[in-house]
Amino acid sequence: MSDFEAQLAELLRGTQEVLVSAELVKKLRRGKPLHIKAGFDPTAPDLHLGHTVLLNKMRQFQQFGHDVTFLIGDFTGMIGDPTGRNVTRPPLTPEAIQANANTYKEQVFKILDPVKTRVDFNSRWFGPMPAAQLIQIAAHQTVARMLERDDFARRYAEQRPIAIHEFLYPLVQGYDSVAMKADVELGGTDQKFNLLVGRHLQETYGQEPQVVMTMPLLEGTDGVNKMSKSLGNYIGITEAPGTMFGKIMSISDEIMWRYFELLSFRPLGDIAALRQAVQEGRNPRDVKFELAREIVARFHDGAAADAAQREFIARVSEKSVPTDLPPKVFSVEAAGVRLGNLLKEAGLAASTSEANRKIDEGAVRIDGQKATDRGLLLQAGADHVIQLGSKRFARVQLVLKA
Amino acid sequence: MSDFEAQLAELLRGTQEVLVSAELVKKLRRGKPLHIKAGFDPTAPDLHLGHTVLLNKMRQFQQFGHDVTFLIGDFTGMIGDPTGRNVTRPPLTPEAIQANANTYKEQVFKILDPVKTRVDFNSRWFGPMPAAQLIQIAAHQTVARMLERDDFARRYAEQRPIAIHEFLYPLVQGYDSVAMKADVELGGTDQKFNLLVGRHLQETYGQEPQVVMTMPLLEGTDGVNKMSKSLGNYIGITEAPGTMFGKIMSISDEIMWRYFELLSFRPLGDIAALRQAVQEGRNPRDVKFELAREIVARFHDGAAADAAQREFIARVSEKSVPTDLPPKVFSVEAAGVRLGNLLKEAGLAASTSEANRKIDEGAVRIDGQKATDRGLLLQAGADHVIQLGSKRFARVQLVLKA
Repeated sequence: MSDFEAQLAELLRGTQEVLVSAELVKKLRRGKPLHIKAGFDPTAPDLHLGHTVLLNKMRQFQQFGHDVTFLIGDFTGMIGDPTGRNVTRPPLTPEAIQANANTYKEQVFKILDPVKTRVDFNSRWFGPMPAAQLIQIAAHQTVARMLERDDFARRYAEQRPIAIHEFLYPLVQGYDSVAMKADVELGGTDQKFNLLVGRHLQETYGQEPQVVMTMPLLEGTDGVNKMSKSLGNYIGITEAPGTMFGKIMSISDEIMWRYFELLSFRPLGDIAALRQAVQEGRNPRDVKFELAREIVARFHDGAAADAAQREFIARVSEKSVPTDLPPKVFSVEAAGVRLGNLLKEAGLAASTSEANRKIDEGAVRIDGQKATDRGLLLQAGADHVIQLGSKRFARVQLVLKA
Repeated sequence: MSDFEAQLAELLRGTQEVLVSAELVKKLRRGKPLHIKAGFDPTAPDLHLGHTVLLNKMRQFQQFGHDVTFLIGDFTGMIGDPTGRNVTRPPLTPEAIQANANTYKEQVFKILDPVKTRVDFNSRWFGPMPAAQLIQIAAHQTVARMLERDDFARRYAEQRPIAIHEFLYPLVQGYDSVAMKADVELGGTDQKFNLLVGRHLQETYGQEPQVVMTMPLLEGTDGVNKMSKSLGNYIGITEAPGTMFGKIMSISDEIMWRYFELLSFRPLGDIAALRQAVQEGRNPRDVKFELAREIVARFHDGAAADAAQREFIARVSEKSVPTDLPPKVFSVEAAGVRLGNLLKEAGLAASTSEANRKIDEGAVRIDGQKATDRGLLLQAGADHVIQLGSKRFARVQLVLKA
């Protein structure tokens, strides 16, 4: 594989769609830095790993010597929701937008090269634009074409209102590509329509149309749904090293490869080798450790990643019930024995009342299952491991009092 | 009938629709001058009487003390057809628009009071408007509502393209009413949708909505189709007095009353009296004379109107074939007699060659029908009135030569 082919393979890695890939090859073959565009909302960012899929692709382009613009779509943000109906979308002030931009920078420069990244704002060209020019832009798209966009089509079919300015927003976003002379635009799959509007407008304005590259939406830690804060299956990039490490370790072995593809900076060859090793018997947990360390190191540092791994291992060991505890035998009434009493008798609590308080706090487990009912009666004829906190265990063998 | 009621009756005279007439009454009752808006294209005007229906309504409002704005919609005219597909609609330069405005003034000030008429241009507020504000305006109308407009609905159903900027033009026109704080907007029936957009936007912007008054499209001289230059059934307001007079006299007695309603400045009471007189036997031609004199005097002057009427009467008298001519008997060969010979024999021409020349010139008629074929043979056994020019006649009786 030539260097060019290897680069191309990395650039295509993880992409959902490339329109048109032959054009991408042609642009790349020219050997000049391409202008890569990716647009972001001007609202306060709180990025999770799902968002970084796009940033990682931007980073790749940077590493291959291309010019990357992180475009903040502040123009429409400053308009807000003009109908005033949507109170959750008030117009953003320039100060709020600048503050959000700074928050973005803090977060994205953990991935992107701050020196090589141009941060731009589309208000730079749309702010001073006269209404007449917007009308001219609007002349280059038809109503029918706009109504083909999935969400518009659905709303129109369901007779839910679409305000006319909503038809202008894709044009605004598309015209950004004209203003920037973008060679490639990156976006989520949900942005495909808008990215194609950019392509269309560039042709209309006599430019070579941009290549549109869509990135998939990353699955969350549940491995099923898209990563999302509201679903709770997310890994925030500002989360503590231990939390982040633990969440990554919680993903399935299957989804781990997806994360490698979309989140790891390791070359495709490395990942193929890891996959091979697992197939040949290497413990997937150890491979997942590598992924987790890489991600934690990216957003914190290597030492934090190592510490997180050590803590993770220790915590897992603590959680596991010792198998070599000698059983203690207790004779109990036919009615059973109360859990609190048993904890005291087994020496895990100093008194029944302390034991009951611990039960209330959720610090007590029976056979690894949390027990929160202080009235629970354990019957004779069974063995249990009872546990208080993460460190104190007792194996109890209950026999019927003679 | 009170003065107020009489004024109201005049204001409602000839209107197609008033939305909402109760609001008009309410606005009028306040006793303050209302702001009346009527919009016009910025293209070179060449007005015919059809266009003056609207101007006459504006004039009425002026006469009742209201403020009338003749609004030239130059803003969209300066944009032209942004797709560049329509070569017949190039962007208008400010100079061209000013020239067109001057031509408008020359023509419309024959009807409107130049002192009381404000001529305005919507580029005054739209020219400096930023794109962001246009987006805000666009937020206040839905796609579904816009697709209800007849022409849009038809084009959408027929899958003919509608460019998105076409959705912005009704909003531009509607927002003019907001910028002007219009109380009443006048327009043709074909403008109803756009006038209602103005009403809607005013409400959105916290203004009392304008009353919308639509005027019918005037029938042309054929009494059937709308007056239009391309149909040839128009009476241009810059036409010569005689032409104008003749065209008005050519309309049917029925359509004459429509013209009285929409074109005459005479009060409704006068017109009712004229109608009564005709019903009681007055010659409708004489009433039509009054209409024609009024219109010609408006666009020329009273003397020109009187002269036009005199000329009209003379021309009509000349055209009519005398009924009391004594027949001259000519005996002709079985093959018939050549028209040129007959003209000479009947004493209308000095020679056959002169007669033939007159035939070529189209100056000869047989029984009122132009005869242009010098080879024409008239047969024995018929009577004809032959005519040279407008004044020389002969009744000929052709008998077969024995």
